[in-house]
Amino acid sequence: MGELKHLVLVKFKEVVVEDILKEMEKLASEIDLVKSFEWGQDSGSDEMLKQGFTHVFLMTFRNAEDFTAFLSHPTHAAFSATFAEAIEKIVVFDFQAVSVKSPT
Amino acid sequence: MGELKHLVLVKFKEVVVEDILKEMEKLASEIDLVKSFEWGQDSGSDEMLKQGFTHVFLMTFRNAEDFTAFLSHPTHAAFSATFAEAIEKIVVFDFQAVSVKSPT
Repeated sequence: MGELKHLVLVKFKEVVVEDILKEMEKLASEIDLVKSFEWGQDSGSDEMLKQGFTHVFLMTFRNAEDFTAFLSHPTHAAFSATFAEAIEKIVVFDFQAVSVKSPT
Repeated sequence: MGELKHLVLVKFKEVVVEDILKEMEKLASEIDLVKSFEWGQDSGSDEMLKQGFTHVFLMTFRNAEDFTAFLSHPTHAAFSATFAEAIEKIVVFDFQAVSVKSPT
């Protein structure tokens, strides 16, 4: 079983996104199960194709077991409630990444 | 200007996904502008949250200029036409990744 990636694509409501980001960075830093975490906001994507999404979050876990443990971690559960209230729409997609081309 | 990531989330029609994947791997291998490329298929995401998406593709470019050049590359243009016919729905999200936690 390889690495598991947890992709979250959202459209935030009119909220203070910085506060949410700070909480999320804290979450990823504090929980050792999270191997790596990166995020980004839209950088001029095609308007029609991006479908209103504003931010993306990508967390990497060593394996599916670590990811499952993360989901039921009390800090994650508490954060999820705050997060749910801040978003207008969301897609969550979990996958095992197949690397075809890696930076040399 | 940092790295630019090109995220494509799709739901494929009933097509031979392997053929599309082969073409996409070829595309990423042949075009030097693509710094890294990974993909994955759904690995048991929450049914409601994944919204029917089946595959994700993530390409990394050195910067926004390389990404723009990739978009107008003839090989990419030719592939896009094939790709468009194979998908039922799509979200494309381009972003500059902010790394909060990196693997040690």
